[in-house]
Amino acid sequence: MTSVPKVLILGAGFAGLGAARKLAKAPVDVVLVDRHDYHTFQPLLYQVATDILDPETVGHPVREYVDNQPNLRFVTAKVSGIDIAARNVTFEDWEDQTYDYLVVGLGARANFFGTPGADEHAFPLYTLNHAIRLKNHVLEQFEAAVKAPPPEAPEMMDVVIVGGGPTGVETAGAMADLLYVTMARDAPRYPIGNASITLVEHGDRLLRMFNESMSEYTKEALEERGVTVRLGESVAQIDQGSVTLGSGEVINAPTTVWGAGLTTSPLAASLSDDLQHGRVPVGPLLNLAEHPEVYVAGDLAWAKDARSGEVLPQLGSVALQAGEHIGRTIDRTLRKHKDPEPFHYIDKGSMATIGRGAAVGVIPPGLHLTGRPAFLTWGAVHLALLNGADSKTAALTNWFWTWMRHDRPSRVLIHPDEED
Amino acid sequence: MTSVPKVLILGAGFAGLGAARKLAKAPVDVVLVDRHDYHTFQPLLYQVATDILDPETVGHPVREYVDNQPNLRFVTAKVSGIDIAARNVTFEDWEDQTYDYLVVGLGARANFFGTPGADEHAFPLYTLNHAIRLKNHVLEQFEAAVKAPPPEAPEMMDVVIVGGGPTGVETAGAMADLLYVTMARDAPRYPIGNASITLVEHGDRLLRMFNESMSEYTKEALEERGVTVRLGESVAQIDQGSVTLGSGEVINAPTTVWGAGLTTSPLAASLSDDLQHGRVPVGPLLNLAEHPEVYVAGDLAWAKDARSGEVLPQLGSVALQAGEHIGRTIDRTLRKHKDPEPFHYIDKGSMATIGRGAAVGVIPPGLHLTGRPAFLTWGAVHLALLNGADSKTAALTNWFWTWMRHDRPSRVLIHPDEED
Repeated sequence: MTSVPKVLILGAGFAGLGAARKLAKAPVDVVLVDRHDYHTFQPLLYQVATDILDPETVGHPVREYVDNQPNLRFVTAKVSGIDIAARNVTFEDWEDQTYDYLVVGLGARANFFGTPGADEHAFPLYTLNHAIRLKNHVLEQFEAAVKAPPPEAPEMMDVVIVGGGPTGVETAGAMADLLYVTMARDAPRYPIGNASITLVEHGDRLLRMFNESMSEYTKEALEERGVTVRLGESVAQIDQGSVTLGSGEVINAPTTVWGAGLTTSPLAASLSDDLQHGRVPVGPLLNLAEHPEVYVAGDLAWAKDARSGEVLPQLGSVALQAGEHIGRTIDRTLRKHKDPEPFHYIDKGSMATIGRGAAVGVIPPGLHLTGRPAFLTWGAVHLALLNGADSKTAALTNWFWTWMRHDRPSRVLIHPDEED
Repeated sequence: MTSVPKVLILGAGFAGLGAARKLAKAPVDVVLVDRHDYHTFQPLLYQVATDILDPETVGHPVREYVDNQPNLRFVTAKVSGIDIAARNVTFEDWEDQTYDYLVVGLGARANFFGTPGADEHAFPLYTLNHAIRLKNHVLEQFEAAVKAPPPEAPEMMDVVIVGGGPTGVETAGAMADLLYVTMARDAPRYPIGNASITLVEHGDRLLRMFNESMSEYTKEALEERGVTVRLGESVAQIDQGSVTLGSGEVINAPTTVWGAGLTTSPLAASLSDDLQHGRVPVGPLLNLAEHPEVYVAGDLAWAKDARSGEVLPQLGSVALQAGEHIGRTIDRTLRKHKDPEPFHYIDKGSMATIGRGAAVGVIPPGLHLTGRPAFLTWGAVHLALLNGADSKTAALTNWFWTWMRHDRPSRVLIHPDEED
């Protein structure tokens, strides 16, 4: 067949796709594998969960990103094992694959930190299916509330969101708009305006990556929108219909969203005996010390920045840059015959949106934005980052409907596997 | 509570929604019930099945159509029984409802005419869930084909479509574009261009509502696109992976689409002892002779036109006009105190699209269109009919991506209830 080296990339997230695309000109055969046929734009998952965007806008065909790369083959399959000694990867639903280079970008999963009931009753928000399941649950609660005798209705729409990071804050703000504006108009006879949305954060402020005044702005903006913010509170237990705080207080919550932490796949253990918080330690080139042909990037990796020496956070922007760096490293070595360079992450800023006209953001070296300027910047940046002109168009039009008109074309309950 | 008459509308399809909207000013309480929270724009279901439009573009929130009607309440529930003697309707998942006026627009379902294996192995195309299931099946076949050793691939993508009416013709044309253009580009190493698409029609021509030269044009346009058209052939049996024709010939078909006929719900029997092909006979006012407070419209009804005396076909345009007529009749009687008028259907034309630049259509009294003029007219008409400015925008942009760029942003496999 062919005698060029084979690069096997596991995962078509930001890391895997970044690596794949930088190998377009490299003298290699690339095999890109993901369990889904779509790439998930994770920063906008909360908008799927709150009916702002269709699932098809946030989950985009992987093949559209790579269909101009003749050296690449994309296959959907689920990894079952990685044997780095034998250079072999096994799949639940595909033949074994050997490799010359392996790039592992398999991401993370929700970490419930052993909280009783969380795994059964809370909705995590890390994958597209998570987002659709949360959306469907909220819409089902709404349909049941509208059918029930009025006094019960508001309790059925109560929501608790655990975690005051970007996922929790963005979900809380979007949920307030969904419940208090769109659904309140949809069902004027029911007191959905009385439903409570509670954001619970263990620490003493929201969005700890930002400064204190931005945290304070975020809290006030959420409260203005009707969200109750509970700082310094832990979650002791989650049951069907309620959340018990560390203080013993019980909050009614037919819907509990979990945005409080990440852990990694059991496959991580096959890459390292020395996992750090479940993540795989890699060197400055983002590969394993004993197996330099194995690269790890994204939420699965425990990587340090080449300049600052700090451990890099689990962010989409880090994953994308790390993946691209790996692709460039392999390309440099094989095509340009140059030495690889250590990975340095360029922080282009971070942002979170709270609702129409309200957001916070930091653009290095020191621009701090809140309110409408942050909101508009957020929109422009995410539109630029969203891959595919079709997804950009869809997002822009849906944002228009949601924020200008408060129509949400996506608020429909679709269960394709049910009868009719 | 209130003492105005209660109008109970079962089904939020074209008939039910048409009736509901014409009651906006009537002195009545309207309760509109559907098993889903969305209205399905059925003429575009084949575009969901072939990844041109997102499910959320074709299934639109019912509440957006009726949220300016203070006299209307919309509830999602599934009808389990209708007792017209007791004026009572029961639901699987809601309390019983009595009524002063009942409007039944519960639609139809696929009729397999007792063909062995059809119910288990063929994909009907009457509901949004049908369309999503067919789409998912084709995408799953594609993913499996891409993983399999090349020689097997084209057979895995073979498609048989039963029925040469609009559903069959439009699906065949769109399937050809999906397989031979989009998927062929997605997977250049696999011979998907050799996959066969076969359209089987029992009669001697396609689209029998049009004249013979339009049928001939349709056949040629499909054949140009790679579809094999088999006229005068019946289907004797459908198995997993194959279709047996009446002649005994067996066609390989991992995917069989059933677009060959309709029957109605078992609930029809509770409305009449004298069903006509499963449909409920109604008088000139579209109500039951013995129970004039019970109206039936849409695919469920067996109605005759007041002027021509002909039985009206099962078409979305008939359902919409009949539903609106019922709403107007009740409004006329109660608010305007005028006598009701018999129903006359105004034929505004019919159309079918075959692919980019190819369609057929008739606009009364006698304008026959084929080719690009028909295609452009088809687009303009469906855009105008598609309810909701957001759905219009989404459809227009998706048609642009599909027909101009051959990108299909919707071609992703989403199974929200699967793990992650």
